[in-house]
Amino acid sequence: MYSVLEKGGVCSPKGFTASGICAGIKASGNADMALLKSEKAARCFSVFTTNKVKAAPVLYDKAVLEHAHRASAVIVNSGNANACTGEQGYADAERMAILTESALNLTPKSVLVCSTGVIGHLMPMEKIEAGIPKLVEKLHAEASEEFGRAILTTDLALKSLAVEITTSKGTVTIGGACKGSGMIHPNMATMLAFITTDVELPIDFFAEFRANIADSFNAITVDGDTSTNDTCFLLANGMSGVSYDDMSLSEQGEFRAALMIVMKELAKDIVRDGEGATKLIELCIEKAESHEEALKMARFIGTSNLAKCAMFGEDPNWGRILSSAGSSGCNMVAEHTDLFFGDVQVLAGGRPVDCDREKLLAVVRQREYKVTLVLNIGFASASAFTCDLSYDYVKINAEYTT
Amino acid sequence: MYSVLEKGGVCSPKGFTASGICAGIKASGNADMALLKSEKAARCFSVFTTNKVKAAPVLYDKAVLEHAHRASAVIVNSGNANACTGEQGYADAERMAILTESALNLTPKSVLVCSTGVIGHLMPMEKIEAGIPKLVEKLHAEASEEFGRAILTTDLALKSLAVEITTSKGTVTIGGACKGSGMIHPNMATMLAFITTDVELPIDFFAEFRANIADSFNAITVDGDTSTNDTCFLLANGMSGVSYDDMSLSEQGEFRAALMIVMKELAKDIVRDGEGATKLIELCIEKAESHEEALKMARFIGTSNLAKCAMFGEDPNWGRILSSAGSSGCNMVAEHTDLFFGDVQVLAGGRPVDCDREKLLAVVRQREYKVTLVLNIGFASASAFTCDLSYDYVKINAEYTT
Repeated sequence: MYSVLEKGGVCSPKGFTASGICAGIKASGNADMALLKSEKAARCFSVFTTNKVKAAPVLYDKAVLEHAHRASAVIVNSGNANACTGEQGYADAERMAILTESALNLTPKSVLVCSTGVIGHLMPMEKIEAGIPKLVEKLHAEASEEFGRAILTTDLALKSLAVEITTSKGTVTIGGACKGSGMIHPNMATMLAFITTDVELPIDFFAEFRANIADSFNAITVDGDTSTNDTCFLLANGMSGVSYDDMSLSEQGEFRAALMIVMKELAKDIVRDGEGATKLIELCIEKAESHEEALKMARFIGTSNLAKCAMFGEDPNWGRILSSAGSSGCNMVAEHTDLFFGDVQVLAGGRPVDCDREKLLAVVRQREYKVTLVLNIGFASASAFTCDLSYDYVKINAEYTT
Repeated sequence: MYSVLEKGGVCSPKGFTASGICAGIKASGNADMALLKSEKAARCFSVFTTNKVKAAPVLYDKAVLEHAHRASAVIVNSGNANACTGEQGYADAERMAILTESALNLTPKSVLVCSTGVIGHLMPMEKIEAGIPKLVEKLHAEASEEFGRAILTTDLALKSLAVEITTSKGTVTIGGACKGSGMIHPNMATMLAFITTDVELPIDFFAEFRANIADSFNAITVDGDTSTNDTCFLLANGMSGVSYDDMSLSEQGEFRAALMIVMKELAKDIVRDGEGATKLIELCIEKAESHEEALKMARFIGTSNLAKCAMFGEDPNWGRILSSAGSSGCNMVAEHTDLFFGDVQVLAGGRPVDCDREKLLAVVRQREYKVTLVLNIGFASASAFTCDLSYDYVKINAEYTT
């Protein structure tokens, strides 16, 4: 069993410290540089954007992690994505890492770099260089929120969480923080996520991590675009003294479930904070031919502007959901499908059923609800999480300027 | 050479008559039933929605056209899509055809049916039955606009066009009308299109028709959804006395080019009339590996909400276009790409170039402009047409109710 820690975050697991400062990269004057450090070099699992256009820090980190799967720190900035910045951009990302390594007295290739913000501008390296020693000086163990805030861009809310699991070998902790609001979509879109744990994890845990990503950060969608900078790190420093390999099978299962909770809740926080979002909707596809098809269909519906506008309008528009499912390219037979808003059934065998209209409207007026499409052609299911499409989404994205 | 006919439309080619009436299907009181008739049975080429959820009239027409590739008339209604209406819906679609055949003294299976409007409601058959004799009575040869207006739903503008081509065998004409504003996307999304010609066309002309569809109606995108009812018919009645097979090769080329013009202009009219649209943007991908990849990438960018909001905000946001191209799944190398807004170059080799900001802003402030992304990895190119995403798109789609 796990328990959620109050004000938990990346610093909750043993041996992690962090800091956040205003380096003046953002015109707004909000915090825009952050540092996360592990006392002992941590095993690092990573997943990066699949976008063909990759930002300099993504290219740098991939190169570093190709050889060593360990990292001692991550230096992060918001306000500038260091994307489409060519060779100078790559040199700048590398320099951020080297300066941090030097300030922390670490060996080469032990610091990773993440950037998020506007594309196409060279990094303001003077500000970055001035910021690094300040971040190092400020490192402390109660900095989960400080770190979480400094990585935000158009986000409105801090996304930070930690859970504790008691095992027969001792207590272990999983923490996390992430950023992302617009451009959120399967495949790590404009999202930075940092998961920390004091468990020692074996290298083949990567398969578990990847599978968790599919049903958490890759199961959410705000607007269907993927970005140049998306990165998710899982840092495991083993400082609880508990090794995953030494856990019992049931304890391993509990640890994996707790990790999934942290990743999924952080992912859902991103959707809740989607640009202009007023609602979080879980789209659940049941009795599909395969988990892959179910997830693909759920994500496809989650990007339908028509469905998302109907959610904003609090209209239980099953026609748009069914039509979107039908154009997802996944297998389905209209005449076999059932559809539910919350627990109110609106379609049976592809035909509308008489339902209690007031009860139905009560469902779609909630801030969070679930839509379940039962395909009745197989045994697999999957969920995706999306938000509605509001006037404010357009406003934020029409007024944000390059 | 072709010339555009004033007030041209589906009735411009010889032997076609049409009509449109208010049958009371729409609450608005606007025209909602239409009839198109050819004096002689016409060869009929058809392309239907690829959505797995197909409306009853689509299923009916597919069944009819599987055996005979000819049709004498098309009965159309707006206001009700006759989709997700089960067996009763199919019986209603068939009944619409049979009643029209009977009122026109035609043989069975010679009338096709199209419906567009809300999903999931049974057809108001009393209104339909009362409307059919009125439509038959009103049939006349100057009815292009009347027909074009009666097929509209949330459309604001009539979409009707005809061109005339002079050949050594005589003058031939191509006319057309279409409807569609929201839910417009590649693969025939919520769109009805009727193309007429008095040329006699061979049955293998279907390949030409299909290829034209790819670069016209399937190259446009308003919101990325495909619908249950999309249909495009090309009716060729041969009443000009000119046969395609008798034309010279260059005349055939002129005919095909003119048909492409009619289809492409009607398709662009749909984008111009996209829900809440204030701009028409041509997204042109050049020097791609293949036409298919170029078209796929152009269409993918055309559905990016981030790119479309930036267009609405008149922001030449090349970052969103490049990032969207990168997440299209098509081959590209960021460092090789050049990007132009109109004729102003903003990226060279994946890096921003200094350009005249005023000239650039003048481009994106136009109602219609072209964005060209040059990939420099091959020799193929393709264009897609999209509109911007405005407050009004959200308003229309949040307030439209089931």
